[in-house]
Amino acid sequence: MPLKAIAFDAYGTLFDVYSVSSMAEELFPGKGAQLAALWRDKQIEYTRLRTLCHQYADFWQVTGDALDYSFTALGLDLAPSSRNRLMGQYAELSAFSENAGQLKRLKDAGIALSILSNGTPWMLDQALKASGLDEYFEHVLSVDAVKRFKTAPEAYQMGPDTFGCDATDILFVSSNCWDICGATWFGYRTIWLNRYGLPLERLGVKPHQIGASLKDVADYAMELNN
Amino acid sequence: MPLKAIAFDAYGTLFDVYSVSSMAEELFPGKGAQLAALWRDKQIEYTRLRTLCHQYADFWQVTGDALDYSFTALGLDLAPSSRNRLMGQYAELSAFSENAGQLKRLKDAGIALSILSNGTPWMLDQALKASGLDEYFEHVLSVDAVKRFKTAPEAYQMGPDTFGCDATDILFVSSNCWDICGATWFGYRTIWLNRYGLPLERLGVKPHQIGASLKDVADYAMELNN
Repeated sequence: MPLKAIAFDAYGTLFDVYSVSSMAEELFPGKGAQLAALWRDKQIEYTRLRTLCHQYADFWQVTGDALDYSFTALGLDLAPSSRNRLMGQYAELSAFSENAGQLKRLKDAGIALSILSNGTPWMLDQALKASGLDEYFEHVLSVDAVKRFKTAPEAYQMGPDTFGCDATDILFVSSNCWDICGATWFGYRTIWLNRYGLPLERLGVKPHQIGASLKDVADYAMELNN
Repeated sequence: MPLKAIAFDAYGTLFDVYSVSSMAEELFPGKGAQLAALWRDKQIEYTRLRTLCHQYADFWQVTGDALDYSFTALGLDLAPSSRNRLMGQYAELSAFSENAGQLKRLKDAGIALSILSNGTPWMLDQALKASGLDEYFEHVLSVDAVKRFKTAPEAYQMGPDTFGCDATDILFVSSNCWDICGATWFGYRTIWLNRYGLPLERLGVKPHQIGASLKDVADYAMELNN
Protein backbone atom coordinates (compact mmCIF):
# COMPACT_ATOMS: atom_id res chain seq x y z
CA MET A 1 0.00 0.00 0.00
CA PRO A 2 1.52 3.34 -1.01
CA LEU A 3 2.41 6.01 1.48
CA LYS A 4 -0.11 8.72 2.07
CA ALA A 5 2.52 11.14 3.40
CA ILE A 6 5.86 11.59 5.13
CA ALA A 7 6.22 13.33 8.49
CA PHE A 8 9.69 14.63 9.34
CA ASP A 9 11.02 15.55 12.73
CA ALA A 10 12.78 18.93 12.48
CA TYR A 11 15.50 19.38 15.12
CA GLY A 12 18.41 17.05 14.53
CA THR A 13 16.68 15.55 11.50
CA LEU A 14 16.40 18.48 9.06
CA PHE A 15 18.28 21.07 11.12
CA ASP A 16 21.63 20.50 12.75
CA VAL A 17 21.16 21.24 16.44
CA TYR A 18 24.91 20.98 16.99
CA SER A 19 25.58 23.74 14.49
CA VAL A 20 25.34 26.09 17.48
CA SER A 21 28.58 24.52 18.75
CA SER A 22 30.85 26.77 16.71
CA MET A 23 29.24 29.93 18.03
CA ALA A 24 29.31 28.46 21.55
CA GLU A 25 33.00 27.69 21.09
CA GLU A 26 33.70 31.21 19.87
CA LEU A 27 31.93 32.67 22.94
CA PHE A 28 33.35 30.16 25.44
CA PRO A 29 36.62 28.74 24.13
CA GLY A 30 37.16 25.12 25.12
CA LYS A 31 33.57 24.73 26.33
CA GLY A 32 31.55 25.02 23.12
CA ALA A 33 30.88 21.33 22.50
CA GLN A 34 30.06 20.70 26.15
CA LEU A 35 27.67 23.65 26.25
CA ALA A 36 25.91 22.60 23.04
CA ALA A 37 25.52 19.01 24.25
CA LEU A 38 24.23 19.91 27.72
CA TRP A 39 21.88 22.51 26.22
CA ARG A 40 20.37 19.92 23.88
CA ASP A 41 20.08 17.27 26.64
CA LYS A 42 18.36 19.65 29.04
CA GLN A 43 16.06 20.94 26.33
CA ILE A 44 14.82 17.42 25.63
CA GLU A 45 14.64 16.57 29.34
CA TYR A 46 12.50 19.62 30.06
CA THR A 47 10.03 18.77 27.28
CA ARG A 48 9.53 15.35 28.83
CA LEU A 49 9.21 16.51 32.43
CA ARG A 50 6.74 19.23 31.49
CA THR A 51 4.66 16.84 29.42
CA LEU A 52 4.64 14.14 32.10
CA CYS A 53 3.53 16.71 34.67
CA HIS A 54 1.05 18.53 32.40
CA GLN A 55 3.06 21.74 32.74
CA TYR A 56 3.49 22.77 29.13
CA ALA A 57 5.61 25.76 28.19
CA ASP A 58 6.50 26.23 24.54
CA PHE A 59 9.73 25.05 22.92
CA TRP A 60 11.24 28.53 22.73
CA GLN A 61 10.74 28.96 26.49
CA VAL A 62 12.09 25.47 27.20
CA THR A 63 15.08 26.08 24.92
CA GLY A 64 15.91 29.29 26.80
CA ASP A 65 15.45 27.62 30.19
CA ALA A 66 17.76 24.79 29.12
CA LEU A 67 20.38 27.31 28.02
CA ASP A 68 20.15 29.17 31.34
CA TYR A 69 20.58 25.91 33.26
CA SER A 70 23.56 24.93 31.11
CA PHE A 71 25.30 28.26 31.67
CA THR A 72 24.91 27.87 35.43
CA ALA A 73 25.91 24.21 35.51
CA LEU A 74 29.09 24.88 33.53
CA GLY A 75 29.94 27.97 35.59
CA LEU A 76 29.78 30.28 32.57
CA ASP A 77 29.02 33.96 32.74
CA LEU A 78 25.51 34.68 31.53
CA ALA A 79 25.92 37.95 29.62
CA PRO A 80 22.61 38.91 27.98
CA SER A 81 24.43 39.43 24.69
CA SER A 82 25.82 35.85 24.69
CA ARG A 83 22.41 34.46 25.53
CA ASN A 84 20.80 36.46 22.73
CA ARG A 85 23.37 35.38 20.19
CA LEU A 86 22.99 31.69 21.04
CA MET A 87 19.20 31.84 21.06
CA GLY A 88 19.25 33.73 17.78
CA GLN A 89 21.47 31.04 16.29
CA TYR A 90 19.01 28.39 17.48
CA ALA A 91 16.29 30.15 15.53
CA GLU A 92 18.34 29.81 12.35
CA LEU A 93 20.03 26.43 12.62
CA SER A 94 21.94 25.08 9.63
CA ALA A 95 20.11 22.53 7.51
CA PHE A 96 21.92 19.34 6.46
CA SER A 97 23.37 19.75 2.98
CA GLU A 98 21.55 16.87 1.30
CA ASN A 99 18.09 18.07 2.37
CA ALA A 100 16.92 20.19 -0.54
CA GLY A 101 17.80 17.66 -3.26
CA GLN A 102 16.13 14.74 -1.52
CA LEU A 103 13.05 16.69 -0.48
CA LYS A 104 12.61 17.85 -4.08
CA ARG A 105 12.92 14.25 -5.28
CA LEU A 106 10.14 13.17 -2.88
CA LYS A 107 7.90 16.09 -3.72
CA ASP A 108 8.35 15.49 -7.44
CA ALA A 109 7.27 11.89 -6.87
CA GLY A 110 3.95 13.24 -5.58
CA ILE A 111 4.43 12.33 -1.92
CA ALA A 112 2.95 14.83 0.54
CA LEU A 113 5.64 16.09 2.90
CA SER A 114 5.12 17.46 6.39
CA ILE A 115 6.99 18.36 9.54
CA LEU A 116 5.87 17.19 12.98
CA SER A 117 8.00 18.98 15.52
CA ASN A 118 8.30 20.03 19.13
CA GLY A 119 9.26 23.51 17.88
CA THR A 120 6.88 26.45 18.01
CA PRO A 121 5.25 27.61 14.76
CA TRP A 122 7.45 30.70 14.85
CA MET A 123 10.68 28.74 15.35
CA LEU A 124 9.81 26.34 12.53
CA ASP A 125 8.86 29.18 10.22
CA GLN A 126 12.17 30.94 10.91
CA ALA A 127 14.27 27.84 10.42
CA LEU A 128 12.47 26.79 7.23
CA LYS A 129 12.79 30.24 5.67
CA ALA A 130 16.44 30.63 6.68
CA SER A 131 17.27 27.27 5.06
CA GLY A 132 15.04 27.74 2.02
CA LEU A 133 13.25 24.46 2.72
CA ASP A 134 9.79 25.95 3.25
CA GLU A 135 8.62 25.30 -0.32
CA TYR A 136 8.71 21.51 0.11
CA PHE A 137 6.25 21.09 2.97
CA GLU A 138 2.51 20.90 2.64
CA HIS A 139 1.96 20.96 6.40
CA VAL A 140 4.16 22.20 9.23
CA LEU A 141 2.73 20.70 12.40
CA SER A 142 3.83 22.05 15.76
CA VAL A 143 2.93 20.23 18.98
CA ASP A 144 2.14 23.68 20.33
CA ALA A 145 -1.39 23.05 19.03
CA VAL A 146 -1.86 20.18 21.51
CA LYS A 147 0.44 21.44 24.31
CA ARG A 148 2.14 18.05 24.68
CA PHE A 149 5.64 17.33 23.43
CA LYS A 150 6.70 14.17 21.67
CA THR A 151 6.77 11.32 22.62
CA ALA A 152 3.21 11.85 23.94
CA PRO A 153 0.56 10.16 21.80
CA GLU A 154 -1.36 13.45 21.50
CA ALA A 155 1.61 14.90 19.61
CA TYR A 156 1.93 11.96 17.20
CA GLN A 157 -1.84 11.98 16.63
CA MET A 158 -1.46 15.24 14.68
CA GLY A 159 -0.15 13.32 11.65
CA PRO A 160 -3.14 11.01 11.10
CA ASP A 161 -5.52 13.86 11.97
CA THR A 162 -3.96 16.13 9.36
CA PHE A 163 -3.81 13.58 6.54
CA GLY A 164 -7.05 11.80 7.40
CA CYS A 165 -5.45 8.37 7.40
CA ASP A 166 -3.98 5.78 9.73
CA ALA A 167 -0.52 6.35 11.19
CA THR A 168 0.65 3.24 9.37
CA ASP A 169 0.10 5.03 6.03
CA ILE A 170 2.54 7.77 7.03
CA LEU A 171 6.31 7.36 7.05
CA PHE A 172 7.79 9.04 10.10
CA VAL A 173 11.41 10.19 9.82
CA SER A 174 13.66 11.22 12.69
CA SER A 175 17.34 11.21 13.55
CA ASN A 176 16.40 10.97 17.23
CA CYS A 177 16.07 7.31 18.10
CA TRP A 178 13.76 8.07 21.05
CA ASP A 179 11.42 9.89 18.65
CA ILE A 180 11.46 6.92 16.28
CA CYS A 181 10.68 4.53 19.15
CA GLY A 182 7.75 6.73 20.21
CA ALA A 183 6.44 6.99 16.64
CA THR A 184 6.76 3.24 16.08
CA TRP A 185 4.89 2.51 19.30
CA PHE A 186 2.24 4.97 18.16
CA GLY A 187 1.75 3.09 14.89
CA TYR A 188 3.66 4.99 12.18
CA ARG A 189 5.82 3.33 9.59
CA THR A 190 9.26 4.55 10.64
CA ILE A 191 12.78 5.08 9.40
CA TRP A 192 15.51 6.06 11.80
CA LEU A 193 17.91 8.49 10.17
CA ASN A 194 20.92 7.42 12.22
CA ARG A 195 23.20 10.27 11.26
CA TYR A 196 25.75 9.63 13.99
CA GLY A 197 26.00 5.83 13.97
CA LEU A 198 24.46 5.51 17.43
CA PRO A 199 23.24 2.27 18.96
CA LEU A 200 19.51 1.57 18.94
CA GLU A 201 17.74 2.54 22.16
CA ARG A 202 16.88 -0.49 24.28
CA LEU A 203 13.16 0.06 24.53
CA GLY A 204 11.90 -3.20 23.10
CA VAL A 205 10.78 -1.56 19.84
CA LYS A 206 12.52 -1.21 16.49
CA PRO A 207 12.10 1.10 13.50
CA HIS A 208 10.94 -0.48 10.25
CA GLN A 209 14.08 0.78 8.56
CA ILE A 210 17.37 2.50 9.36
CA GLY A 211 19.23 4.92 7.10
CA ALA A 212 22.27 7.15 7.34
CA SER A 213 21.19 10.15 5.25
CA LEU A 214 18.12 11.74 3.73
CA LYS A 215 18.97 9.90 0.48
CA ASP A 216 18.34 6.60 2.27
CA VAL A 217 15.01 7.97 3.46
CA ALA A 218 13.99 9.02 -0.04
CA ASP A 219 15.09 5.63 -1.46
CA TYR A 220 13.00 3.81 1.12
CA ALA A 221 9.93 5.98 0.48
CA MET A 222 10.24 5.43 -3.30
CA GLU A 223 10.57 1.69 -2.76
CA LEU A 224 7.43 1.64 -0.57
CA ASN A 225 5.52 3.53 -3.24
CA ASN A 226 6.52 1.27 -6.11
CA MET B 1 -0.22 22.40 60.51
CA PRO B 2 1.91 19.36 61.40
CA LEU B 3 3.11 16.88 58.82
CA LYS B 4 1.07 13.76 58.36
CA ALA B 5 4.00 11.83 56.87
CA ILE B 6 7.26 11.97 54.95
CA ALA B 7 7.74 10.31 51.56
CA PHE B 8 11.32 9.62 50.52
CA ASP B 9 12.59 8.93 47.06
CA ALA B 10 14.93 5.91 47.18
CA TYR B 11 17.53 5.94 44.39
CA GLY B 12 20.02 8.74 44.83
CA THR B 13 18.23 9.93 47.96
CA LEU B 14 18.60 7.01 50.39
CA PHE B 15 20.78 4.77 48.22
CA ASP B 16 23.88 5.92 46.42
CA VAL B 17 23.35 5.10 42.74
CA TYR B 18 26.96 6.00 42.00
CA SER B 19 28.23 3.42 44.44
CA VAL B 20 28.25 1.04 41.46
CA SER B 21 31.07 3.16 40.01
CA SER B 22 33.81 1.35 41.90
CA MET B 23 32.73 -2.05 40.66
CA ALA B 24 32.31 -0.61 37.16
CA GLU B 25 35.85 0.80 37.40
CA GLU B 26 37.21 -2.53 38.56
CA LEU B 27 35.56 -4.30 35.60
CA PHE B 28 36.37 -1.59 33.04
CA PRO B 29 39.42 0.39 34.18
CA GLY B 30 39.25 4.05 33.17
CA LYS B 31 35.58 3.79 32.16
CA GLY B 32 33.81 3.18 35.48
CA ALA B 33 32.56 6.69 36.16
CA GLN B 34 31.43 7.15 32.56
CA LEU B 35 29.59 3.82 32.57
CA ALA B 36 27.86 4.56 35.89
CA ALA B 37 26.79 8.03 34.71
CA LEU B 38 25.48 6.88 31.32
CA TRP B 39 23.70 3.92 32.93
CA ARG B 40 21.91 6.23 35.36
CA ASP B 41 21.00 8.77 32.64
CA LYS B 42 19.60 6.11 30.33
CA GLN B 43 17.71 4.45 33.17
CA ILE B 44 15.92 7.71 33.94
CA GLU B 45 15.38 8.49 30.25
CA TYR B 46 13.77 5.11 29.63
CA THR B 47 11.36 5.53 32.57
CA ARG B 48 10.17 8.80 31.05
CA LEU B 49 9.85 7.59 27.49
CA ARG B 50 7.96 4.49 28.54
CA THR B 51 5.61 6.48 30.75
CA LEU B 52 4.96 9.13 28.07
CA CYS B 53 4.18 6.38 25.56
CA HIS B 54 2.19 4.17 27.95
CA GLN B 55 4.70 1.36 27.49
CA TYR B 56 5.51 0.44 31.07
CA ALA B 57 8.18 -2.12 31.87
CA ASP B 58 9.33 -2.42 35.46
CA PHE B 59 12.41 -0.69 36.90
CA TRP B 60 14.51 -3.86 36.97
CA GLN B 61 13.89 -4.38 33.25
CA VAL B 62 14.56 -0.71 32.49
CA THR B 63 17.74 -0.77 34.59
CA GLY B 64 19.01 -3.80 32.66
CA ASP B 65 18.07 -2.24 29.31
CA ALA B 66 19.90 0.95 30.25
CA LEU B 67 22.99 -1.08 31.19
CA ASP B 68 22.90 -2.95 27.89
CA TYR B 69 22.65 0.31 25.96
CA SER B 70 25.52 1.81 27.94
CA PHE B 71 27.77 -1.17 27.27
CA THR B 72 27.12 -0.86 23.54
CA ALA B 73 27.44 2.92 23.42
CA LEU B 74 30.80 2.82 25.22
CA GLY B 75 32.05 -0.08 23.11
CA LEU B 76 32.48 -2.37 26.11
CA ASP B 77 32.38 -6.13 25.97
CA LEU B 78 29.11 -7.44 27.35
CA ALA B 79 30.19 -10.57 29.23
CA PRO B 80 27.19 -12.09 31.05
CA SER B 81 29.27 -12.25 34.23
CA SER B 82 30.00 -8.50 34.17
CA ARG B 83 26.37 -7.73 33.54
CA ASN B 84 25.28 -9.97 36.41
CA ARG B 85 27.78 -8.45 38.81
CA LEU B 86 26.71 -4.89 38.00
CA MET B 87 23.00 -5.70 38.19
CA GLY B 88 23.57 -7.54 41.46
CA GLN B 89 25.36 -4.52 42.84
CA TYR B 90 22.42 -2.34 41.80
CA ALA B 91 20.16 -4.52 43.90
CA GLU B 92 22.30 -3.82 46.95
CA LEU B 93 23.36 -0.20 46.60
CA SER B 94 25.15 1.48 49.48
CA ALA B 95 23.04 3.68 51.72
CA PHE B 96 24.32 7.12 52.68
CA SER B 97 26.02 6.98 56.06
CA GLU B 98 23.83 9.52 57.86
CA ASN B 99 20.58 7.73 56.96
CA ALA B 100 19.97 5.46 59.94
CA GLY B 101 20.53 8.11 62.62
CA GLN B 102 18.28 10.68 61.00
CA LEU B 103 15.53 8.21 60.13
CA LYS B 104 15.52 7.02 63.73
CA ARG B 105 15.25 10.61 64.93
CA LEU B 106 12.20 11.19 62.70
CA LYS B 107 10.55 7.92 63.63
CA ASP B 108 11.11 8.61 67.34
CA ALA B 109 9.38 11.96 66.85
CA GLY B 110 6.29 10.05 65.75
CA ILE B 111 6.40 11.01 62.07
CA ALA B 112 5.23 8.28 59.68
CA LEU B 113 7.96 7.50 57.16
CA SER B 114 7.49 6.05 53.71
CA ILE B 115 9.30 5.48 50.45
CA LEU B 116 7.79 6.42 47.09
CA SER B 117 10.06 5.02 44.43
CA ASN B 118 10.33 4.01 40.79
CA GLY B 119 11.95 0.77 41.96
CA THR B 120 10.13 -2.54 41.96
CA PRO B 121 8.92 -3.97 45.29
CA TRP B 122 11.62 -6.62 45.05
CA MET B 123 14.42 -4.13 44.39
CA LEU B 124 13.30 -1.90 47.26
CA ASP B 125 13.00 -4.85 49.59
CA GLN B 126 16.52 -6.03 48.73
CA ALA B 127 18.07 -2.59 49.12
CA LEU B 128 16.30 -1.86 52.41
CA LYS B 129 17.30 -5.19 53.91
CA ALA B 130 20.89 -4.94 52.69
CA SER B 131 21.21 -1.49 54.29
CA GLY B 132 19.28 -2.34 57.46
CA LEU B 133 16.90 0.57 56.87
CA ASP B 134 13.73 -1.50 56.52
CA GLU B 135 12.67 -1.03 60.15
CA TYR B 136 12.08 2.71 59.74
CA PHE B 137 9.43 2.69 57.03
CA GLU B 138 5.73 2.22 57.58
CA HIS B 139 5.01 2.05 53.83
CA VAL B 140 7.22 1.20 50.89
CA LEU B 141 5.37 2.41 47.81
CA SER B 142 6.49 1.27 44.39
CA VAL B 143 5.10 2.88 41.25
CA ASP B 144 4.86 -0.65 39.91
CA ALA B 145 1.36 -0.64 41.43
CA VAL B 146 0.24 2.08 38.99
CA LYS B 147 2.55 1.24 36.05
CA ARG B 148 3.61 4.87 35.60
CA PHE B 149 7.00 6.19 36.64
CA LYS B 150 7.58 9.48 38.39
CA THR B 151 7.10 12.30 37.44
CA ALA B 152 3.62 11.16 36.32
CA PRO B 153 0.83 12.38 38.63
CA GLU B 154 -0.45 8.79 39.00
CA ALA B 155 2.83 7.90 40.72
CA TYR B 156 2.77 10.85 43.12
CA GLN B 157 -0.90 10.17 43.92
CA MET B 158 0.17 7.05 45.81
CA GLY B 159 1.28 9.18 48.78
CA PRO B 160 -2.03 10.93 49.51
CA ASP B 161 -3.91 7.71 48.75
CA THR B 162 -1.84 5.77 51.25
CA PHE B 163 -1.97 8.29 54.08
CA GLY B 164 -5.53 9.50 53.42
CA CYS B 165 -4.54 13.16 53.37
CA ASP B 166 -3.69 15.95 50.95
CA ALA B 167 -0.27 15.98 49.30
CA THR B 168 0.44 19.26 51.07
CA ASP B 169 0.42 17.40 54.41
CA ILE B 170 3.23 15.13 53.26
CA LEU B 171 6.86 16.20 53.04
CA PHE B 172 8.44 14.80 49.89
CA VAL B 173 12.21 14.30 49.96
CA SER B 174 14.43 13.66 46.96
CA SER B 175 18.00 14.30 45.90
CA ASN B 176 16.83 14.36 42.28
CA CYS B 177 15.81 17.90 41.44
CA TRP B 178 13.49 16.74 38.63
CA ASP B 179 11.65 14.55 41.15
CA ILE B 180 11.31 17.50 43.51
CA CYS B 181 9.96 19.69 40.72
CA GLY B 182 7.40 17.01 39.82
CA ALA B 183 6.37 16.55 43.45
CA THR B 184 6.06 20.30 44.01
CA TRP B 185 3.91 20.67 40.91
CA PHE B 186 1.80 17.78 42.19
CA GLY B 187 1.19 19.57 45.48
CA TYR B 188 3.55 18.05 48.06
CA ARG B 189 5.53 20.07 50.55
CA THR B 190 9.06 19.47 49.29
CA ILE B 191 12.69 19.57 50.33
CA TRP B 192 15.41 19.05 47.77
CA LEU B 193 18.27 17.10 49.25
CA ASN B 194 20.92 18.67 47.04
CA ARG B 195 23.74 16.26 47.86
CA TYR B 196 25.96 17.33 44.98
CA GLY B 197 25.55 21.12 45.02
CA LEU B 198 23.79 21.15 41.66
CA PRO B 199 21.92 24.13 40.20
CA LEU B 200 18.14 24.16 40.44
CA GLU B 201 16.39 22.88 37.33
CA ARG B 202 14.87 25.71 35.27
CA LEU B 203 11.30 24.52 35.23
CA GLY B 204 9.57 27.51 36.76
CA VAL B 205 8.96 25.70 40.06
CA LYS B 206 10.92 25.68 43.32
CA PRO B 207 11.09 23.34 46.30
CA HIS B 208 9.85 24.71 49.61
CA GLN B 209 13.24 24.02 51.14
CA ILE B 210 16.74 22.91 50.13
CA GLY B 211 19.11 20.86 52.27
CA ALA B 212 22.48 19.19 51.85
CA SER B 213 22.08 16.06 53.97
CA LEU B 214 19.41 13.97 55.66
CA LYS B 215 20.11 15.93 58.85
CA ASP B 216 18.81 19.07 57.14
CA VAL B 217 15.72 17.13 56.11
CA ALA B 218 15.10 15.95 59.68
CA ASP B 219 15.67 19.47 61.06
CA TYR B 220 13.15 20.89 58.60
CA ALA B 221 10.54 18.22 59.40
CA MET B 222 10.97 18.83 63.16
CA GLU B 223 10.60 22.56 62.61
CA LEU B 224 7.39 22.05 60.61
CA ASN B 225 6.00 19.87 63.39
CA ASN B 226 6.72 22.30 66.20
